[in-house]
Amino acid sequence: MSERFVIIGGDAAGMSAASKARRSDPNLEIIVLEKGEWVSYGACGLPYYVKGEVEQIEDLVAITPEEFVEKRNIDLRLNHEVTEIRPERKSIIVAEGGEEQEMRFDKLLIAVGASPIVPDIPGSDMEEVFTLHGLDDGKEIRSFVEEKPPDRAAIVGGGYIGIEMAEALHDRGLEVDVIEGLSRLLTPFNPDVSDVVQSHLSERVDVHLNDFVEGISRVGSEELRISFGGQEILSDMVVMAAGVQPNVQLAEEAGVKLGPTGAISTDEYGRTNFPDVFAAGDCAEATNTLTGGPDYVPLALTANRDGRAIGSTVGGDPVLLAEIAGTAVLKAFDLEVARTGLAVEDRARREGFDPISVTIKAPSRAGYYPGPKRIDVSLVADETSGLLLGGSMVGKEGVSKRIDTLAAALSASMTVSELENLDLSYAPPFGPTWDPLLTAAKVLAGRLNRL
Amino acid sequence: MSERFVIIGGDAAGMSAASKARRSDPNLEIIVLEKGEWVSYGACGLPYYVKGEVEQIEDLVAITPEEFVEKRNIDLRLNHEVTEIRPERKSIIVAEGGEEQEMRFDKLLIAVGASPIVPDIPGSDMEEVFTLHGLDDGKEIRSFVEEKPPDRAAIVGGGYIGIEMAEALHDRGLEVDVIEGLSRLLTPFNPDVSDVVQSHLSERVDVHLNDFVEGISRVGSEELRISFGGQEILSDMVVMAAGVQPNVQLAEEAGVKLGPTGAISTDEYGRTNFPDVFAAGDCAEATNTLTGGPDYVPLALTANRDGRAIGSTVGGDPVLLAEIAGTAVLKAFDLEVARTGLAVEDRARREGFDPISVTIKAPSRAGYYPGPKRIDVSLVADETSGLLLGGSMVGKEGVSKRIDTLAAALSASMTVSELENLDLSYAPPFGPTWDPLLTAAKVLAGRLNRL
Repeated sequence: MSERFVIIGGDAAGMSAASKARRSDPNLEIIVLEKGEWVSYGACGLPYYVKGEVEQIEDLVAITPEEFVEKRNIDLRLNHEVTEIRPERKSIIVAEGGEEQEMRFDKLLIAVGASPIVPDIPGSDMEEVFTLHGLDDGKEIRSFVEEKPPDRAAIVGGGYIGIEMAEALHDRGLEVDVIEGLSRLLTPFNPDVSDVVQSHLSERVDVHLNDFVEGISRVGSEELRISFGGQEILSDMVVMAAGVQPNVQLAEEAGVKLGPTGAISTDEYGRTNFPDVFAAGDCAEATNTLTGGPDYVPLALTANRDGRAIGSTVGGDPVLLAEIAGTAVLKAFDLEVARTGLAVEDRARREGFDPISVTIKAPSRAGYYPGPKRIDVSLVADETSGLLLGGSMVGKEGVSKRIDTLAAALSASMTVSELENLDLSYAPPFGPTWDPLLTAAKVLAGRLNRL
Repeated sequence: MSERFVIIGGDAAGMSAASKARRSDPNLEIIVLEKGEWVSYGACGLPYYVKGEVEQIEDLVAITPEEFVEKRNIDLRLNHEVTEIRPERKSIIVAEGGEEQEMRFDKLLIAVGASPIVPDIPGSDMEEVFTLHGLDDGKEIRSFVEEKPPDRAAIVGGGYIGIEMAEALHDRGLEVDVIEGLSRLLTPFNPDVSDVVQSHLSERVDVHLNDFVEGISRVGSEELRISFGGQEILSDMVVMAAGVQPNVQLAEEAGVKLGPTGAISTDEYGRTNFPDVFAAGDCAEATNTLTGGPDYVPLALTANRDGRAIGSTVGGDPVLLAEIAGTAVLKAFDLEVARTGLAVEDRARREGFDPISVTIKAPSRAGYYPGPKRIDVSLVADETSGLLLGGSMVGKEGVSKRIDTLAAALSASMTVSELENLDLSYAPPFGPTWDPLLTAAKVLAGRLNRL
């Protein structure tokens, strides 16, 4: 009897693991149990589906269930929900069509993802209150927006999804309110950078800060009243975009250990405290390359990569999981906004560093070349060691891939001076002679030298 | 008497050194001798001045002579040519207005740049034969193009300047021939990448390969006949863009040592074999970060940075010169083309490595996001060590700053596997989940593992 690899969850981490395990070991029995209908989809594309730039929801599916089954010889079972994990017995309980049955495994991967955080407030269960997580969520919002159609939308949360949805709904002609409980948008970014985003957004939508939503109630037959910090606004729909939390209940009930972030803790190969049980993707922790400690940054690349590594390990070719720097980029209307590492001084201080930071403004092209835009670059370093800790940046062009240079520098544990000395590219259409990153490093190195 | 720092040459390296030395030491006497009229200009912008996108030639001047004199207290002397260096006497001979005089120095910087290579062929001195190096060259070409105006231009050389000039003149409505003596354009780039550029150019201009120009002669009163490899073409003007050579005569006559590349050899502080005589910019070598040996890659950032470092050193705060990876980017009509490191297998082999390379094609955005363009990424690694050696890439978007991630990886001596594990940014408008760099690294790592 061949070895059996069971995977719970059919999205990025799960299907990457299944595909890689198949390539590594043609004889492995690979079963994927997905509780829903969709597998291997690009959830990051949902705002653009709602916006209408992505036409069909099926366009977001990278690989169809048929391909997995027929071309990759993966036993993919849709509408199969795992209700219990029994690590000691090396089995799980699977529910399908009202029936439950026990299934044995040799290796198990928990790749059950995360769920949107919905604040526990009155009215959060009304039908005009949406979240945006799975493909069905995207279909519901787009149908509502196209069929009703609403005039106003309130978005609860000023993070990635909140801002992308603000753009999508504004583009569809709605008046949009963004309500963020903290004092600024995009809190994982340096304040100098998030402030630029905030002004840009404020020219297009109403941004409310410093207050958490307290309740949603109906006014008349259709309109909603949203209350926060003594204020009230009216809207036709609400999108809850207050972040996600890892789906850990199944694991926790089985005795799988969680880490300090609340997500599933694993070793460097993705193994939980049960050596035959792995976890990856939005339900699991990863190792932060700067702190060396566990971190929870649920993003698509990490899910894909860790799933792939575990698939290889289970298939007989052990691969270490990659560390993460928390690199992220988003489009916010006409802006590109990006971050990596410990981009905010407070966070760096909490991790035991002695942070110092600068923010510089530079043009995206040579000053004389037509159409330069402004780029704001913010860097954080450790005062004691001169080590680069993180950065964030914003601008109308030239930001999305510039952040990756910083991510590479962080992975290599570069100091600010080493960053300043990088031989970066230059041509008038693409930047000034001193790249904005180099200018920022130069200014920061100057401050470090004066200390 | 305060110490005197004399600088020969008033462009990037010279003026950067002067400015930084002034900031480091307010009491230093700083004299800059520039044989021409222009200082501190962006020669890289000349093709865009010829094209007409940069309106005034003065727009290319970063800082005016008056600012250097008045705001930075630098004794800048235009139209002063240095005709001799006497290192043992610590003096130079300066010619101005027909008079020569000796000037002492405590520290000297040779920053005399490079000159365009003009093939020694019949007709190369005709008035319709141009080079593009200084601002006056740019003015001459633009005047000729605007006043004559010519119908056809032949460009000799298929490197950066040749391609940028092809774009500029094509944009002005000329029919353009590009004549390259070697078998392909852009030889410092991987052939897979330069081939893409070549097809793109061939749709817009006539590209002739494999033959060096043998002569230029006049046909009738105005037209020129250009001969190469048994062929002849007619044209109204010729631009010689066959590369540059370092200006070393003055240094060589003074006993300043040249390196294996033919440019001035320096130590890690930019000192020549005479400890009080420095050299920087397009006349000097730099240290290649991959080989650890001397290299000659005359580009703007290196000139600026090395000048600045030497200015700091002379001003009392010693700064090591940065190593170079040879990172470069250019716009070639609608393409962005970039390279870094040892991007061609042959070059890597000559440097003692055992190269292996791959080229992959990837989209510049998520597949479902509107408007993805193709990016070709080529990577070279050392088979024995797995060390990343270089890369080149081409595409209609997302190339210019992506190359910098590779440059950072090269500086950090990353292996291909380390590159593959970088936590790079992802959002649907800016790339696929696996960045094209990561995909290329993954494919190359797969090949390395199979060996």
